[in-house]
Amino acid sequence: MDHILDIIEKPQDIKKLNMNEMNVLADEIRDLLVNSVAECGGHLAANLGVVELTIALHNVFDSPNDKIIWDVGHQSYVHKILTGRREQMKSLRKFGGISGFPKVEESEHDAYNTGHASTSISAALGMAIARDLKKETYSIVAFIGDGALTGGVAFEALNHAGQEGRDLIVLLNDNEMSISKNVGAMSGYLNRLRTDPSYSRTKEEIETALHKIPAIGPNIAKAALRFKDMVKYMMVPGKIFEELGFTYIGPVNGHDLSELNKVLGNARKMKGPILIHAITQKGRGYGPALKNPRIFHGIGPFDIETGSPFKNAIKTYTEVFGDFMIKQAGRDERMVAITAAMADGTGLARFARCYPQRFFDVGICEQHAVTMAAGMARAGLRPVVAIYSSFLQRSYDQLIQDIALQNLPVIIAVDRAGLVGEDGPTHHGVFDMAFIRNIPNFTVMAPANENELANMLFTACHLDSPSAIRYPRGVGDGVPVNEEPELLPVGKGEIITNGDDLTIIAIGRGVSLGKETQKILAEQGIACCLINARFIKPLDKDLIIKSALKNPRLITLEDGCLSGGFGSAVIEMLNDENIKADILRCGINDEFIEHGKTELLFDFLNMDAQSLAGRIISHWPALLKQKKVVGLYKIGEN
Amino acid sequence: MDHILDIIEKPQDIKKLNMNEMNVLADEIRDLLVNSVAECGGHLAANLGVVELTIALHNVFDSPNDKIIWDVGHQSYVHKILTGRREQMKSLRKFGGISGFPKVEESEHDAYNTGHASTSISAALGMAIARDLKKETYSIVAFIGDGALTGGVAFEALNHAGQEGRDLIVLLNDNEMSISKNVGAMSGYLNRLRTDPSYSRTKEEIETALHKIPAIGPNIAKAALRFKDMVKYMMVPGKIFEELGFTYIGPVNGHDLSELNKVLGNARKMKGPILIHAITQKGRGYGPALKNPRIFHGIGPFDIETGSPFKNAIKTYTEVFGDFMIKQAGRDERMVAITAAMADGTGLARFARCYPQRFFDVGICEQHAVTMAAGMARAGLRPVVAIYSSFLQRSYDQLIQDIALQNLPVIIAVDRAGLVGEDGPTHHGVFDMAFIRNIPNFTVMAPANENELANMLFTACHLDSPSAIRYPRGVGDGVPVNEEPELLPVGKGEIITNGDDLTIIAIGRGVSLGKETQKILAEQGIACCLINARFIKPLDKDLIIKSALKNPRLITLEDGCLSGGFGSAVIEMLNDENIKADILRCGINDEFIEHGKTELLFDFLNMDAQSLAGRIISHWPALLKQKKVVGLYKIGEN
Repeated sequence: MDHILDIIEKPQDIKKLNMNEMNVLADEIRDLLVNSVAECGGHLAANLGVVELTIALHNVFDSPNDKIIWDVGHQSYVHKILTGRREQMKSLRKFGGISGFPKVEESEHDAYNTGHASTSISAALGMAIARDLKKETYSIVAFIGDGALTGGVAFEALNHAGQEGRDLIVLLNDNEMSISKNVGAMSGYLNRLRTDPSYSRTKEEIETALHKIPAIGPNIAKAALRFKDMVKYMMVPGKIFEELGFTYIGPVNGHDLSELNKVLGNARKMKGPILIHAITQKGRGYGPALKNPRIFHGIGPFDIETGSPFKNAIKTYTEVFGDFMIKQAGRDERMVAITAAMADGTGLARFARCYPQRFFDVGICEQHAVTMAAGMARAGLRPVVAIYSSFLQRSYDQLIQDIALQNLPVIIAVDRAGLVGEDGPTHHGVFDMAFIRNIPNFTVMAPANENELANMLFTACHLDSPSAIRYPRGVGDGVPVNEEPELLPVGKGEIITNGDDLTIIAIGRGVSLGKETQKILAEQGIACCLINARFIKPLDKDLIIKSALKNPRLITLEDGCLSGGFGSAVIEMLNDENIKADILRCGINDEFIEHGKTELLFDFLNMDAQSLAGRIISHWPALLKQKKVVGLYKIGEN
Repeated sequence: MDHILDIIEKPQDIKKLNMNEMNVLADEIRDLLVNSVAECGGHLAANLGVVELTIALHNVFDSPNDKIIWDVGHQSYVHKILTGRREQMKSLRKFGGISGFPKVEESEHDAYNTGHASTSISAALGMAIARDLKKETYSIVAFIGDGALTGGVAFEALNHAGQEGRDLIVLLNDNEMSISKNVGAMSGYLNRLRTDPSYSRTKEEIETALHKIPAIGPNIAKAALRFKDMVKYMMVPGKIFEELGFTYIGPVNGHDLSELNKVLGNARKMKGPILIHAITQKGRGYGPALKNPRIFHGIGPFDIETGSPFKNAIKTYTEVFGDFMIKQAGRDERMVAITAAMADGTGLARFARCYPQRFFDVGICEQHAVTMAAGMARAGLRPVVAIYSSFLQRSYDQLIQDIALQNLPVIIAVDRAGLVGEDGPTHHGVFDMAFIRNIPNFTVMAPANENELANMLFTACHLDSPSAIRYPRGVGDGVPVNEEPELLPVGKGEIITNGDDLTIIAIGRGVSLGKETQKILAEQGIACCLINARFIKPLDKDLIIKSALKNPRLITLEDGCLSGGFGSAVIEMLNDENIKADILRCGINDEFIEHGKTELLFDFLNMDAQSLAGRIISHWPALLKQKKVVGLYKIGEN
């Protein structure tokens, strides 16, 4: 049998389908989603939940003339499938393939690039203003999940959009992850009332009538009060949005294509800011994802039959962090853990079960998470805030103002630091060393392996000042994590191997890379001294200066941005100490890095060990010659 | 006659006063406020508005056991007066004197340091959690203005605090700057109902009753709908807070001490999160401030009789920016201006009058401002976002994700860059060069004078990529601003003076400092080449390398942080180009800088011209010797 999907080359093709065909299309898309993500990894559950919403959007609206902005963007796979990228789903999130997020560069149907949560309404409002000033006419839809709606910037935008009163539609995809679940038959009834065009007039009439009442007596008020409370419990979801100036429509069944086509069609004709509240089910249509939407939120390749992800035997840094937190909570009752909607992602889910009173998931609110931690520390707790590196960019001001200026003992656990692989440029955590090290009072560390992560966390717990520990996504080196963590001397690195020809000063993931590089160089007779710097701040001045004086050939090696990063800190220090050295800085250049397997990205950036060895030799060609001479000399001696 | 103020040494002394004495106290405090700020400058209008609120807070609560967190903190003068710092008001905001913001280091009554808006509820919630975990008992009050409540992080915190349900009080100081003004007699009546302890029971009863109704028929629903709208217009302010889990009390008259004592007293006894909505008048009790609360928000020293600030004849950078914007809007109809609640502060008030359709004040929402600008740029406008340097820290993620990753032509006008003087460490804009230059795609500039600011803005308008221009608080050099701005070559600096002994590479305010330093050195016979770098990014590689090759004695001079800042960029570049030079980096060390007149701060930091000349000579003592020799030699020749 022919597939309907095969005839959908552009969104306009959907408009030719009847309701039955649209439902078949939805099924076909679900199959494609499961197959693509099982192979490539990605955000499965969210995409399974928005199949009908996306079909209806493209049926009712007219992309690319109308603009759809996908908040966060990880739920845009169905949109990609319907906008000419069906075949490319095979390359989803692969190096050189299509991105797991909307990309203007990829398709004219991608109106705005996203990756971090809660920005869609701001961007949509900006576009609406531009449209109106340029006297153009098109519809703009911000598609946002209930989780993303907890982010402060979404509230800022709702508040402003409501005041501006421009035509724009916020499509709230409520998969019951955060927002009140208190929606029932009553709301369904109210919804039908509300989407009825006659409703607007009725509302205006009431308004006018009320304004004409010269004075409102206490009896009416008393009655009103009772009714207000009564109404409140019948009308939970819409109020906040109405207060903020939106016309609220909902809730609607986000899997009922017929209802969706009707509601979206009505909304398209309405004026002013509209919020459509759609209820969906994460993981819909695929048993394992339905059962475990958290695990299938973002997942690596998995077995379709069982839904089991192909798991690594070695522990991830994230797991080691989670283990440490539980142990440390037993040792120190002041310790509490905070996450911004990433309990699983940051490895705190088990902590949450062991210490529910000491665990705080604040939603997608990185700013609040950090300031709340400052308040906790001020009042005597020892908070650990676990946030992904690229999301921590949201808290930059709070790191400065709330943590550092007050010199409070808050620990920032910076997960997903460095290149993160398939999620790409919005998620690479390459700026953290640069943006944290310029904040006074912060101690900044990066472990070379998972055991060192535990030691660093333990060390941070003994500081009376702010600290940040950055560590990568994925598995560690497989080294055993000691039962009892060790206090590390602050601001001290360690020499891993000695060698007289040059010195590699590596940080974090740079250390394992340095080890490989050192081996390759050793094969060519070049002897490296390899230093694990451990601390980005304070730097181990003595050790680095001593190395530079012994041999002025230095390489700094980091998986972060070179501008202002770790290598930059090293040359600042050496410069200010008036030490002359010849320094080759290896790290991420001043550009955004695409998506793809981390190893491929390192290759692409000439940051794999082989390339690094090559760069070192070509920077100091004398190294080889010198070795050859020595070799000949030795041969001559024999 | 004796002053009541004279016997208030600590908050507990207020509790001994009767109502009449409290009102006299309020008058005395207003006198002291006007006199102090007329001499020292500061935030007058806000403090005049919170006199009674602060008295009542200290009358009802028991500081320092109970904690009061002042959002933003510029309204904490009354609190300072009442907590033993009356005499020190003479030194307000002066170097070595008391700060214009709460400071834990200054008094045990300052529970938490603030400076940037919208953090108080997060901090209060953090403290409440700590209190409960430690099984302590005290009250926590977050004092927040209606303006600060627009900030997203305040919403994040309200949302979370409502869910947590812990005892804490948010005191909303509504001086009618942002929030709906729709409050009247009806609300006053409802307020009395609400603060009545019997209300809670009544509400619970209704709730229970409603839950018992097995099915709600369409008729009740229809009636409820009518009433909902009716109630809405009677009950405007409280709803959002109630939805977020707070008990709403208000509005109350924020100048009626008797009402305030009663309401706060009730609130202290209530459980769970409470929001008290107090209405106050900015500038109350001082005619000029009442009339012009915007001007008296933050003001320099002024004449008490007339209320006229002592004004400078020379234009400020801010004014030059405002002038440029109006002219450029005439030249390019795509241009729009955005501010985050700082229309006056950023010089855009006149633009707002000239181009109301193209001006957007989004409230204290720096994140939304930047993302909205990205949306605008994506849809064809040319937005200019004017934000103070230290507040731009709030938008760091948006600069990366929304602007830079999409390479959109948004111009960020970074006002108040560098040291800002009396507002102190929370407001110094010292991190911007470091945190923006590490973002790919950004062009970053800093003008040496006000004419160059106009040229840089004009240049930025012709870029098809993101740019940021940082410029200082206060007046320029007094150079005339050309009628027609000039396009500057991107990434090119200029040589201001030639000289063979050393090269000063200065940026922004560093240039005028460099000129003075150069003169002092010239008097000692040392010839400086002075370069105005203009661009932090891209650097003028050619010029800097040429200078370094000509004379390897380089000084970098900036009014930003040395960690990762401009000088850091210069040494990175020279290092990577393998150019050996002896570089003295002058700028802000890795520490927070206190408040005080900017000139005094520069002195204190050894960043005044005299100190700089001294540092240069002691870094290169040979410079002097060499000159003396040359001098003698010349004398010998005559």
